[in-house]
Amino acid sequence: MRAGPRNLITDVSGLRIGNARDDDLRSGVTVLIADAPMACGVNVMGGAPGTRETELLAPDKMVQCVDALVLSGGSTFGLAACDGVSEGLRHMGRGFEIGPVRVPIVPGAIIFDLLNGGDKNWAQNPYPALGRAALDAARTDFALGSEGAGTGALTHQWKGGLGSASAVLDNGLTVGAIVAVNALGSVTLGDTRQFWAAPWELDREFGGLGLDGPFDGTLEPRMTKRLGEATTIAIVATDAVMDKAALTRLATAAQDGMARAIVPSHTPHDGDLVFAVSTGTKPMPDPLSTPFQLGHAAASVLARAIARGVYSATSRSGDLQPRWSA
Amino acid sequence: MRAGPRNLITDVSGLRIGNARDDDLRSGVTVLIADAPMACGVNVMGGAPGTRETELLAPDKMVQCVDALVLSGGSTFGLAACDGVSEGLRHMGRGFEIGPVRVPIVPGAIIFDLLNGGDKNWAQNPYPALGRAALDAARTDFALGSEGAGTGALTHQWKGGLGSASAVLDNGLTVGAIVAVNALGSVTLGDTRQFWAAPWELDREFGGLGLDGPFDGTLEPRMTKRLGEATTIAIVATDAVMDKAALTRLATAAQDGMARAIVPSHTPHDGDLVFAVSTGTKPMPDPLSTPFQLGHAAASVLARAIARGVYSATSRSGDLQPRWSA
Repeated sequence: MRAGPRNLITDVSGLRIGNARDDDLRSGVTVLIADAPMACGVNVMGGAPGTRETELLAPDKMVQCVDALVLSGGSTFGLAACDGVSEGLRHMGRGFEIGPVRVPIVPGAIIFDLLNGGDKNWAQNPYPALGRAALDAARTDFALGSEGAGTGALTHQWKGGLGSASAVLDNGLTVGAIVAVNALGSVTLGDTRQFWAAPWELDREFGGLGLDGPFDGTLEPRMTKRLGEATTIAIVATDAVMDKAALTRLATAAQDGMARAIVPSHTPHDGDLVFAVSTGTKPMPDPLSTPFQLGHAAASVLARAIARGVYSATSRSGDLQPRWSA
Repeated sequence: MRAGPRNLITDVSGLRIGNARDDDLRSGVTVLIADAPMACGVNVMGGAPGTRETELLAPDKMVQCVDALVLSGGSTFGLAACDGVSEGLRHMGRGFEIGPVRVPIVPGAIIFDLLNGGDKNWAQNPYPALGRAALDAARTDFALGSEGAGTGALTHQWKGGLGSASAVLDNGLTVGAIVAVNALGSVTLGDTRQFWAAPWELDREFGGLGLDGPFDGTLEPRMTKRLGEATTIAIVATDAVMDKAALTRLATAAQDGMARAIVPSHTPHDGDLVFAVSTGTKPMPDPLSTPFQLGHAAASVLARAIARGVYSATSRSGDLQPRWSA
């Protein structure tokens, strides 16, 4: 397993990411779109999720593919970003075909960033326009850190952000991840800058500090945020052919990457979830061992993406937390 | 957070553990019972679970408490251990009261240990008797390692086993875990004896080797077992008052301990799951921060219990894998 050429989720061929942000609002939107509809699954482990169109991702539900996925700031108001994306897809003629109409399938999830110092006194919900702008900006290269859905993100200790990473497996398949890191938990060990994700780090992609302690198993984490102020939301992607059920399982395996990169994860006050998508362009070499390998890769890539999101955060005036690299 | 006096799940007052094993069968059964019925939740993350009576644990289902929980070897045949436990409870007059009858509520889960070198050519299913024997042996002190449901357990590299650990939080609440470790994944880093769970270790309870690498994020795990040969099943317990919904969330949080202690966890071929029970003898100091603390403690204690199970495995003739301490 090695990092792909961009070390971004867009190393999965056919995927594009669009980011939009509003620095006064201290929030933004990230959109994933592909050249063609993607098979998709989801796994929700956090106790406080904010979602849209996730029910249809269950393996038994009719629709098999999504047109785009949205990660957004703005808590429940950010779910409106999907409206802007759907409108853009409508103009593009994209969507689930029902007779003469097309219904864009755009699941989304949000992080809570309403108490991050931004100006939230808007008269009109800004997220539909941010969603549309993110869709229009979709490309294969994009910036990490204080961008898109990670614009206003915070964590236990360091400024959060938008992270991404990729891996090319020995079998030639690619797995990528993108994540908005806004966790209640900590991505680093105690008072150090050592990322919990360090065992999975490739090529010093988030500073190369390793993880060698000292560990203190007696430590009990403190809640530095208030109720509902958190959430880490992610997408993992692969080019391997996988159906909704297999992708549900891939999303589940990827949650382990969050558990390893953020301590604690999946708390009652986080809406932590993982979407998994497949572009379906490459066959599965082995029906038993390949999903096992892909699951490990998804967990590894998501852990790395989480660390890279915090590692890449940049300073903006009014920041409530230090950036990792300060 | 410190380990409780026994460093066992039975540090949660009122709980007892019974173990029974058959060395020719290379399998066994572990039973958790309490002085009174326990509130219970469950979270299933593995792709190949084997369970009984888990549906009734959903928060919306009528029954609120269980009389006992069973962890068993034997794959699907081991689910019969619950029959022996139910019969024993019937004799004790225990069970959900419906008019003049009592219906023992005994959820259970199994690991796959049918290809571990034991004699599986039984004419009559041995698990009901093992379940009954485990119930009759229930006590507050018990041995770890190659005992109970961990008797015939294997992992990626080392002999598996039965593990347990406990923690007393700064707020005075206790959290304990018991686990049968039979994972497809590895509990140690690469070719070293360093446990992945080391960051959570207390008092050198599993050797004190730490975790300092070298890490190699490029490694892809191999499947050393065949399809369906794995599974790690656990119970976490607390004395804090928690209902089924809160315990479902506690079980979910505890899964992060498995993710951190076993790489990879929650694969398509593991039936990984966590039960969570409450004896309900102590009030919750704070409705927001205490469940957050308990979730972290549950993950930490489960990670430690997993390492302790492998650390405590003992040699028996015909072992297919080395024990960690060999």
